[in-house]
Amino acid sequence: MAQIGVGMLGYAFMGKAHSNAFRKIPYITWPPPLEPLLIGIAGRNEQAVGEAALRYGWDYATTDWRDLIADERIGLFDNGGPNALHAEPTIAAARAGKHVVCEKPLGRDAGESYEIWKQVAATGVKHMCGFNYRFVPAVRLAREMIEAGELGEVRHFRGRYLQDWGDDPSLDTWRFNPDEAGSGALGDLMTHVVDLARFLNGEIATVSGFAHTFLPGRKVDDAVEAAVEFGNGSIGTLEATRFAHGRRNAFQWEINGTKGSLAFDMERLNELQVFRADGDRARGFKTVLVSETDHPFWKYWWPPGHIIGWGDTFVHELHHMLWAIAEDADVAPYGADFEDGYRASEICDAIVRSGETGARETISYKTL
Amino acid sequence: MAQIGVGMLGYAFMGKAHSNAFRKIPYITWPPPLEPLLIGIAGRNEQAVGEAALRYGWDYATTDWRDLIADERIGLFDNGGPNALHAEPTIAAARAGKHVVCEKPLGRDAGESYEIWKQVAATGVKHMCGFNYRFVPAVRLAREMIEAGELGEVRHFRGRYLQDWGDDPSLDTWRFNPDEAGSGALGDLMTHVVDLARFLNGEIATVSGFAHTFLPGRKVDDAVEAAVEFGNGSIGTLEATRFAHGRRNAFQWEINGTKGSLAFDMERLNELQVFRADGDRARGFKTVLVSETDHPFWKYWWPPGHIIGWGDTFVHELHHMLWAIAEDADVAPYGADFEDGYRASEICDAIVRSGETGARETISYKTL
Amino acid sequence: MAQIGVGMLGYAFMGKAHSNAFRKIPYITWPPPLEPLLIGIAGRNEQAVGEAALRYGWDYATTDWRDLIADERIGLFDNGGPNALHAEPTIAAARAGKHVVCEKPLGRDAGESYEIWKQVAATGVKHMCGFNYRFVPAVRLAREMIEAGELGEVRHFRGRYLQDWGDDPSLDTWRFNPDEAGSGALGDLMTHVVDLARFLNGEIATVSGFAHTFLPGRKVDDAVEAAVEFGNGSIGTLEATRFAHGRRNAFQWEINGTKGSLAFDMERLNELQVFRADGDRARGFKTVLVSETDHPFWKYWWPPGHIIGWGDTFVHELHHMLWAIAEDADVAPYGADFEDGYRASEICDAIVRSGETGARETISYKTL
Amino acid sequence: MAQIGVGMLGYAFMGKAHSNAFRKIPYITWPPPLEPLLIGIAGRNEQAVGEAALRYGWDYATTDWRDLIADERIGLFDNGGPNALHAEPTIAAARAGKHVVCEKPLGRDAGESYEIWKQVAATGVKHMCGFNYRFVPAVRLAREMIEAGELGEVRHFRGRYLQDWGDDPSLDTWRFNPDEAGSGALGDLMTHVVDLARFLNGEIATVSGFAHTFLPGRKVDDAVEAAVEFGNGSIGTLEATRFAHGRRNAFQWEINGTKGSLAFDMERLNELQVFRADGDRARGFKTVLVSETDHPFWKYWWPPGHIIGWGDTFVHELHHMLWAIAEDADVAPYGADFEDGYRASEICDAIVRSGETGARETISYKTL
Repeated sequence: MAQIGVGMLGYAFMGKAHSNAFRKIPYITWPPPLEPLLIGIAGRNEQAVGEAALRYGWDYATTDWRDLIADERIGLFDNGGPNALHAEPTIAAARAGKHVVCEKPLGRDAGESYEIWKQVAATGVKHMCGFNYRFVPAVRLAREMIEAGELGEVRHFRGRYLQDWGDDPSLDTWRFNPDEAGSGALGDLMTHVVDLARFLNGEIATVSGFAHTFLPGRKVDDAVEAAVEFGNGSIGTLEATRFAHGRRNAFQWEINGTKGSLAFDMERLNELQVFRADGDRARGFKTVLVSETDHPFWKYWWPPGHIIGWGDTFVHELHHMLWAIAEDADVAPYGADFEDGYRASEICDAIVRSGETGARETISYKTL
Repeated sequence: MAQIGVGMLGYAFMGKAHSNAFRKIPYITWPPPLEPLLIGIAGRNEQAVGEAALRYGWDYATTDWRDLIADERIGLFDNGGPNALHAEPTIAAARAGKHVVCEKPLGRDAGESYEIWKQVAATGVKHMCGFNYRFVPAVRLAREMIEAGELGEVRHFRGRYLQDWGDDPSLDTWRFNPDEAGSGALGDLMTHVVDLARFLNGEIATVSGFAHTFLPGRKVDDAVEAAVEFGNGSIGTLEATRFAHGRRNAFQWEINGTKGSLAFDMERLNELQVFRADGDRARGFKTVLVSETDHPFWKYWWPPGHIIGWGDTFVHELHHMLWAIAEDADVAPYGADFEDGYRASEICDAIVRSGETGARETISYKTL
Repeated sequence: MAQIGVGMLGYAFMGKAHSNAFRKIPYITWPPPLEPLLIGIAGRNEQAVGEAALRYGWDYATTDWRDLIADERIGLFDNGGPNALHAEPTIAAARAGKHVVCEKPLGRDAGESYEIWKQVAATGVKHMCGFNYRFVPAVRLAREMIEAGELGEVRHFRGRYLQDWGDDPSLDTWRFNPDEAGSGALGDLMTHVVDLARFLNGEIATVSGFAHTFLPGRKVDDAVEAAVEFGNGSIGTLEATRFAHGRRNAFQWEINGTKGSLAFDMERLNELQVFRADGDRARGFKTVLVSETDHPFWKYWWPPGHIIGWGDTFVHELHHMLWAIAEDADVAPYGADFEDGYRASEICDAIVRSGETGARETISYKTL
Repeated sequence: MAQIGVGMLGYAFMGKAHSNAFRKIPYITWPPPLEPLLIGIAGRNEQAVGEAALRYGWDYATTDWRDLIADERIGLFDNGGPNALHAEPTIAAARAGKHVVCEKPLGRDAGESYEIWKQVAATGVKHMCGFNYRFVPAVRLAREMIEAGELGEVRHFRGRYLQDWGDDPSLDTWRFNPDEAGSGALGDLMTHVVDLARFLNGEIATVSGFAHTFLPGRKVDDAVEAAVEFGNGSIGTLEATRFAHGRRNAFQWEINGTKGSLAFDMERLNELQVFRADGDRARGFKTVLVSETDHPFWKYWWPPGHIIGWGDTFVHELHHMLWAIAEDADVAPYGADFEDGYRASEICDAIVRSGETGARETISYKTL
């Protein structure tokens, strides 16, 4: 079986999630497109990264990500570090001929995101931005239904990502440091909303809204609100917040079309709500447990009704990357490539600008 | 028992709903503050209004609402006619010394709404604008909890009123005639969203958004989207649409505060979702069936768990009006008076302006 | 419009529910099959029954139900009194040529129920037993779907009626007096479960189970459990209890067939859960808001999505009785007649016997 | 780190689930109590078991389970084979001094289950029966709440395990062969219901019910129904079926006590419904997403709200077994040992006997 060496930057939340995925891919997606070998892991805290290497089975740990770049056994560089560490290591890895995965947000703003995309694209390696929610079976099923025309013409998309851990002035992580994070709920949560909006409903044309910080002294945004128009003529709202008590990971979206509607909540990620305007006297939304043999990704898993977890979305995501490498196939459209990462940044920046100027912002993208 | 004669303009949807309420009030809210006597009903279609009088038990029918104004037995004029018929009859009734109820939207725009409020207020009669959703037990319970500080400082309000009957070019009622209706989803649905936003969370400071018409040739808006800031520092989104397939009467709102959250859906109007950040290890939203003996309005009804219907909200609403008349009490704050009706119009107009100019609009109200 | 005079025994819970229904029928079901005239109401407490007459608009009140029997203006006798007062007044009314409605349980046991049925049937009047849940739109829709074969061959019926007000030794109403009530949860709740089991799935063949009393000193049962076989080959469980904390009025049932399934909860009585095994890739239960123009009873009500309440089921039920009288039509099968009332009693008694003997009981019915 | 060699019988459904768990334990539960080494896997089909070994990383494959017994590197024998292969290999492994895990049902009937328990217990090894649902975080949380007295005195337990894949005469697996499976829904599903009933609510005193086969020619039961009494005075129903269309893996249970209630559905295994009779005006069931840092097993996983999957329950289960071995601790009461496996069989057999004799069966257990 063909193999690929993996190097990873970051050992915390995404480090755990991605390590778990790389370890499960070989047997869950059997036979895998490539067998990932866990070569090296890099992080700032020597003790912590050392323990992570031991725990997750990486061959070695280092406090210098350049060691990974220099390691010729590594063919795939997976960047799960803080946002400030997305650009330089990712570009360096690509220039060293390594395929790259980079967590979202791609850069701390649209300018940085564009630069990452541009520099990496120039090298010809495969690149994927970590919008793992494209790989939730229910989300992929939604995409397939929409592509097949099952919703007809789309009228509305509304998405909101609600969490509730931010309303605490004592919190102090890199996520609240504007240099390291770039932004708050915007880059952390709104990028996900924007990405699925684009994945399911196409490009956004205009945004009217703002980012907002509730806590005095906090230096990044706590929440973001926007009314939006899409290129396909549909309209809606986008929202992201860390201040919605009781909503732990409630990434909720709904899409309404002339033939039907779909709705979703990440806290019940195995379910898709499906409405079909088919004239059935029994009219209503179906609660579809997306776990059938003919559902996306389900050939890897269990009998119908035996649900998967949040962590398993990374199995699908990184499997997709390995497949793209093995087959020399495009990461997009089912995966998000760096252009998608850049575009999400453009939209997020436009919401911030709208907030600052009070004006509706029209989205325009740069090309390479 | 003291009595009051009622005259009603309109015999269709609101005519049925209000007639039913007037008939139920005497025995359901026993003893009622005033016994309503159904005197006269007015409408344009002679046969239809005649049948309505027979059906609902009005003493007489007329095709000229001025007959009701002239009728000295009538002490309360209830205007459920098309929007274009709100101003003149309502003002005339008030000038004739009759207390007035007027369906929402109060006027077809803020200017007309202001005029109605101003002229009626000058007469000294009681006035109520038909925001009946303030009288859903779950909504009133929410208000009481918020007033008691149970949510702490509010961070977010998001509201959306989703219906799905509008996506049909063949529809032709007064609701699509801009002269008669003034607007589409804006006046019909968004006014409700705005009113409950104000009822539960106070004044709106700014709006960024737009109204939108999907169907070529349709002369009123089909949907409205807005990102908003409230005077209390909270933020959110407001939406109204007649184009959300599968959502029949989904007036959904959620409010998040530092101590808890509440959520609601009109399709399950007997339920309130309640989250308390109280440190209980069993952490989550409660599905509260608002039908307990200590819940708002429930003394009138059935044993706990025996739910009420949408039509019953009007029993509470019109009972409140009769109580205000009998007690010479203010309709506000638990009922919406014409100032509330006017303010909802101001906010709706501001959303339209924001859509036209592309700029965030700051809300300011006129006073008398 | 043809009219019928009504006399009612009982002014409390059912008195309120039925009075409300009689008052709403003329205008909600317009034109009604017969216009009910509220003639006389009887009850033991002179002050209370007098106030009820005033409140609900009955012409007169009496403490002697025989006054109603003697009143020639009364053509329909509606018995909502305690269970011990079902037999004698109902039979007397029928013998006096009055059509009769009697609340469930028909009698306090199968013997008494049979006697009521037999004596009343002999008179030729119309008779209806108050199983109002047959008149929930979602329940009727279920019946229509099953009759149309949409579920295929039925495999399972499971029903449970859960309430939570009984776990209090201080409670003292006629419902806990075995002479007045006959039984506890059995007659109060299990009869409803049995009736809908029969209404939706046909006759029950055997029962294995028991009635149970939790509280020392309580003289009626608190809960009932049974495993059952139906005549059509399907199997399931039946349960009724007043001891299920948090369940206020949770009459829940589910039926599974070879082509689909239906599920229901009275706390959300406007909804029917519908599963169709139709091969749709979007596989799941639909939440059907039973409020469409082509849904049962909905021509009387509001636009789709504007839900009705528990009290409104009596409007449908008593309308059906007035229709049967006006048309000289059978109350059954869509309404429950006294034979249905008797049969529910037989099954309930069989569960009690099964509990006493420890043996499975085979159901057999007496005929006239 | 201390290690233990594992040998496994069975490579299909449970083989995949357990292999996955053994591979995840070392890093997810870091540091694990023992590091499991995947030594040998046995199965009847040489090609299939060979591929399973390759896929999941077992050192070798064999078609003779005796090879595993003879392998001195193996300290833990995990039996996930067909029911007919539970007794002999499990006993042999224990006699060879290996700790044993055996899937449920322990034996094909109570006699065989008793024998397995007796023979294995005599060896002194650790033994666990595969009731993995004890290791769902929500189920463990329920147990902890009940143990802490948070429900008060229990009144009801009702459990049902509904699946829908059985209604197809063409199905032909060992699960329909009475020699290999012993029974149908009884051993496959009802054992789970019985085990959680015992885990959460203690011993069952009597059962009244039956097993039933719908399809002509099918040689095992398709569904089981029972009314039950518990030793603690509570009562309820138990049900298991493969014939409930639309219910894929709906293992649902509810428990009602004097202080509160809990409810659960395996299709939403991350959620626990919690009702507390605490006098809060906001009265209702909470939907608790069991993913907090202070919830059972959650220290291993993700931030709150990021749910786990069905497959992850085996991580908890087998971790528990490794812990019991490492600490020389009892598998019970949080895990199910072979006595629990035996007792579940006794209750299942009693339901079958009740069905055959028509009599209520009193449960009595044998001891060693």
